[in-house]
Amino acid sequence: MTLAFASDYQEGCHPEILEALNKTNSEKTEGYGTDSYSALAKAKILEACGISNGEVYLLVGGTQTNEVVISSFLKPYEGVIAADTGHISTHEAGAIEHGGHKVLTLKHEDGKISAERIEAYCADFYADGNHEHMVHPGMIYLSQPTEYGTLYSLKELEAIREVCDKYDLYLYIDGARLAYALASKENDVSLKDLGRLTDVFYIGGTKCGTLFGEALVVRKKDTIPHLFTLIKQHGALLAKGRILGVQFYKMFEDGLYERIAKEAIRLADRLRHGLEEKGYEQAIIAPTNQIFISIDDKDMADLASKVNFSFWEKKDATHTVIRFVVSWSTSEDEVDALLEIL
Amino acid sequence: MTLAFASDYQEGCHPEILEALNKTNSEKTEGYGTDSYSALAKAKILEACGISNGEVYLLVGGTQTNEVVISSFLKPYEGVIAADTGHISTHEAGAIEHGGHKVLTLKHEDGKISAERIEAYCADFYADGNHEHMVHPGMIYLSQPTEYGTLYSLKELEAIREVCDKYDLYLYIDGARLAYALASKENDVSLKDLGRLTDVFYIGGTKCGTLFGEALVVRKKDTIPHLFTLIKQHGALLAKGRILGVQFYKMFEDGLYERIAKEAIRLADRLRHGLEEKGYEQAIIAPTNQIFISIDDKDMADLASKVNFSFWEKKDATHTVIRFVVSWSTSEDEVDALLEIL
Amino acid sequence: MTLAFASDYQEGCHPEILEALNKTNSEKTEGYGTDSYSALAKAKILEACGISNGEVYLLVGGTQTNEVVISSFLKPYEGVIAADTGHISTHEAGAIEHGGHKVLTLKHEDGKISAERIEAYCADFYADGNHEHMVHPGMIYLSQPTEYGTLYSLKELEAIREVCDKYDLYLYIDGARLAYALASKENDVSLKDLGRLTDVFYIGGTKCGTLFGEALVVRKKDTIPHLFTLIKQHGALLAKGRILGVQFYKMFEDGLYERIAKEAIRLADRLRHGLEEKGYEQAIIAPTNQIFISIDDKDMADLASKVNFSFWEKKDATHTVIRFVVSWSTSEDEVDALLEIL
Amino acid sequence: MTLAFASDYQEGCHPEILEALNKTNSEKTEGYGTDSYSALAKAKILEACGISNGEVYLLVGGTQTNEVVISSFLKPYEGVIAADTGHISTHEAGAIEHGGHKVLTLKHEDGKISAERIEAYCADFYADGNHEHMVHPGMIYLSQPTEYGTLYSLKELEAIREVCDKYDLYLYIDGARLAYALASKENDVSLKDLGRLTDVFYIGGTKCGTLFGEALVVRKKDTIPHLFTLIKQHGALLAKGRILGVQFYKMFEDGLYERIAKEAIRLADRLRHGLEEKGYEQAIIAPTNQIFISIDDKDMADLASKVNFSFWEKKDATHTVIRFVVSWSTSEDEVDALLEIL
Repeated sequence: MTLAFASDYQEGCHPEILEALNKTNSEKTEGYGTDSYSALAKAKILEACGISNGEVYLLVGGTQTNEVVISSFLKPYEGVIAADTGHISTHEAGAIEHGGHKVLTLKHEDGKISAERIEAYCADFYADGNHEHMVHPGMIYLSQPTEYGTLYSLKELEAIREVCDKYDLYLYIDGARLAYALASKENDVSLKDLGRLTDVFYIGGTKCGTLFGEALVVRKKDTIPHLFTLIKQHGALLAKGRILGVQFYKMFEDGLYERIAKEAIRLADRLRHGLEEKGYEQAIIAPTNQIFISIDDKDMADLASKVNFSFWEKKDATHTVIRFVVSWSTSEDEVDALLEIL
Repeated sequence: MTLAFASDYQEGCHPEILEALNKTNSEKTEGYGTDSYSALAKAKILEACGISNGEVYLLVGGTQTNEVVISSFLKPYEGVIAADTGHISTHEAGAIEHGGHKVLTLKHEDGKISAERIEAYCADFYADGNHEHMVHPGMIYLSQPTEYGTLYSLKELEAIREVCDKYDLYLYIDGARLAYALASKENDVSLKDLGRLTDVFYIGGTKCGTLFGEALVVRKKDTIPHLFTLIKQHGALLAKGRILGVQFYKMFEDGLYERIAKEAIRLADRLRHGLEEKGYEQAIIAPTNQIFISIDDKDMADLASKVNFSFWEKKDATHTVIRFVVSWSTSEDEVDALLEIL
Repeated sequence: MTLAFASDYQEGCHPEILEALNKTNSEKTEGYGTDSYSALAKAKILEACGISNGEVYLLVGGTQTNEVVISSFLKPYEGVIAADTGHISTHEAGAIEHGGHKVLTLKHEDGKISAERIEAYCADFYADGNHEHMVHPGMIYLSQPTEYGTLYSLKELEAIREVCDKYDLYLYIDGARLAYALASKENDVSLKDLGRLTDVFYIGGTKCGTLFGEALVVRKKDTIPHLFTLIKQHGALLAKGRILGVQFYKMFEDGLYERIAKEAIRLADRLRHGLEEKGYEQAIIAPTNQIFISIDDKDMADLASKVNFSFWEKKDATHTVIRFVVSWSTSEDEVDALLEIL
Repeated sequence: MTLAFASDYQEGCHPEILEALNKTNSEKTEGYGTDSYSALAKAKILEACGISNGEVYLLVGGTQTNEVVISSFLKPYEGVIAADTGHISTHEAGAIEHGGHKVLTLKHEDGKISAERIEAYCADFYADGNHEHMVHPGMIYLSQPTEYGTLYSLKELEAIREVCDKYDLYLYIDGARLAYALASKENDVSLKDLGRLTDVFYIGGTKCGTLFGEALVVRKKDTIPHLFTLIKQHGALLAKGRILGVQFYKMFEDGLYERIAKEAIRLADRLRHGLEEKGYEQAIIAPTNQIFISIDDKDMADLASKVNFSFWEKKDATHTVIRFVVSWSTSEDEVDALLEIL
């Protein structure tokens, strides 16, 4: 059997989550997230984010969450600024445009966009005499960690927040893999920082140990009225919402979300270290759970017969960048086995 | 504790489904429904529907499925004909219109619309000299069972199919509670009939024993190209698609879908019979898992303290129609307890 | 040649409008409605409506204006309440739904909906425990005169305004044929009343003597920010906006809008009177420029060879309701000729 | 008074067009483009394009036409490939995204995109294992002349057509200023070439001498069924369609469209020659009716007090690129006056 390093959604869920689902399975609760587990989960999440007057909604998937947030927060004449490598820019099949909004892409650096670049974009926009004929910037979309596994520092986020305040933009962070950011040694951005700096962000479950689910955190209650109805309108309201509630309550009840990712990052660091020792160079320097190396095309086919990894991009005529993903479900043995093969 | 008769999504999932999820939890599979469990589930479902060259997609929820189907199958100038009591007409928060399409409502009879009424609507439409200024009918949406718990007979569906052929309309059936229709003694429409008569329909999981999930069945492959991409675009593609695959495979592997509903209908019939004996009259004659009775408003408050039921509609100044839902998770004891109270 | 009584858009424009276009044709102005003619027109219109702090936008057509207003004023979770006979409900090819919003239809009485009916709808909506799963009413759409040629009285509009205030709804009036309402002897609603009672309405040009054009009047500036950009986004911004400005300035410079319609109504009244004398009964009692009579189907074919009129609806097996439209371009001779034929 | 060189929509319409409107003003015709002038115009246009089995629709404006075409021709999962400088990419306020489609931008060269670049984009797209999660390319949007005043050669268009055939893409050309392309000495692409190479394109009226109006040409009838209804749905159907018909009939009856532009190009060439003689360098080498020069910022303010021109972009700290537009309404005297000032 091949080793599974292709993505962080290849297993079901973390055993403790599964246990919680088993234990609560036959209880009867109200639907649509109005149950007590969802209430508990939301309270725990707000607490973890240091938010006293906010809202949490539990949704099923990442693209869905991005689409609901962006189309609900933006006015019809607004678009969302994102890195050209952002998930919404590339791999969501046009979900944002289907919702009526343009993704205003800025060139990325290691998967990130800087406050300077955003500032320049906005300054140019408002300087243009024709800007009333153009899509107004209304929101900034970042991913933490980025699609390249890199991290925004606290200083970088604070600078971006300043630009948001200056130009009246919402700051939205896609945290599909947020647990792995929080656990990285290089990270200096806490959940409380996100609760303070963003207007809305989501804490990813699907890639971080739940069966599925993303917890959408809105800093200030009623920023968008009737978000519940909008979620329903987008087909994103789970009938048995308590399944999300149970999972996120378990995650945030006693630090499971952090624990899961800490172990994953320990193994990712180990894999990174092992690769270095074997002379592989990281194609992208990323301190989270994604590891990118450049590999000779001749070796790649051989490797593919033993390991399930992701093709990332062609590097040159004879080399390819591939990606290994270490997840909450990766074991020490699997890392060892992979290092042996390489 | 109150008795739970308010809806069919108050518990988690059927124990056999849960067991299947437990057993497969740590297996590693491909994402997005490309795994082998999803493949097995789809094959079993097509077989059950007697379809040799169709497609199955596994989605998460009902509104989502309706929204994806309708906006994917219709041309932009088309709308969908539905009963004014249809779920898409009333309780989906405008999801269909958000997708750009008008719901062309016809007055219902017991939750249903007849071939005659649809025929008359279409004839009028094409007779109108201004019809190029109007929304063209492009699809018929039915629910089986309906929102009133009633059933279309095979003869009724065949007549509607004829109208569809005459006016080049897709026939789409919302089967959120389909299991309960199939198990009803009054039903004469099989899965194979649906596979033969509709262009697309869905087999509901959420209300019929899965944690969540609806199996969308398309009679003819590639009726709509790139439906996979459209599902993604609508935020409706589950990353760990295998969770849907495992559940629906379990349901269709050895007749669980039928068994679950048969028991629910047995209990619903028993409740119906008991109510009759106690002198309650059914407000809507429905042979599936929803039971509607008219109750004196004075008694209603008292009942509400002991039983969780649904308000349906005001009948007159002093009476209200309420709904009891018997589901896969209802026990004989609960039915007995409810009858005792009433 | 047949007599033209089918609609009010069969000629070009009123001679005085044409003269103004001729006179200004070779002047050079800024584009997109930022020219001085547009500024003058807007000032005159606001003055006529008694509005001191409002906005006027000049658009090209009626469906376009309805679509821009409704999709700009409504939040995504809101729909617009309209008569089931309203233009947006029937003859705009789904433009409102294409913009993402449901038309919440109420049954009409003579083309109108009453404050009572709207009140009842809203009361029911908010009483429904599931209303967060439904489309929220956000606006009322009326036509003055209605599609049936009937009029809302001042008292009726004031009552509707009260409901709007109670339920926080925008009041929007489609004035495609407004001039004919203002000129009707039965009318007691002035432009100033509309300026005071609605949030937004439009003064129709196309059917009232301009080549094309509708003047959208917003009672309070910046009710919707960046409406200019939204108009552009909907493809509704005329490059040479001054063509609209010149026409509406001419219309409102010295009472031309009133004069044109007064003459049309005089002729319509004459036609009505003549029909009565000849024993025809009005199928709809309408005091504006549309006249509806019931006619024997045998006579209809004969009439159709001499007069261009509109089919309205089948009355019974042997009779049809037909419509004559008297417009700004109808001459006394034409009315006489029509009466002679009938 | 300042000299008007800012755009090609500063006057009303060409005197011959105005005369035709005057002459036909009091005729009575059918609405919505079903009149005989529209029929004549469409026949003349199809003939000029060498199309025997196509369709012509007359719309009001450019953004409107782009929006209707793109959202009508594309499937919901498709986007449109365009230069990053394309009008739809920048100055249409997000009209295309509002219609649900992503603009897939390619980097321009002198306002153009090459067959090679499009080929590479498509090859990459289909090579990507994740392409079913991405927006599928469905159409290529070009402008002739481009927003930079440059021209596609016949050879370039033929090469692009080949890529379209290979990847099953529609080829759509925005001809807002098409007359000026056809009249340019460097042009080798005829209307018949466009009729042969594109699937759909439009012949601009607004910037080329009509009051307003764009003639949309579809090479093959019924490529998109019910386009009439879609035009209505987008609020783009002019009630008095004959106003468009009269204008385009006049334009194509006896070569007026060519004559108008020939004179404009003669004057543009003269201005270009004069600028050269005075030592100004063209910032963009463009052979049509737009002329771009780089100017010292100190001189710009002075010039702006005498001439109405367009700001194009900052060149460096002390220089700006400005644009002069010569149009059908520009006179020899105006060109002389401008040259004198410079």
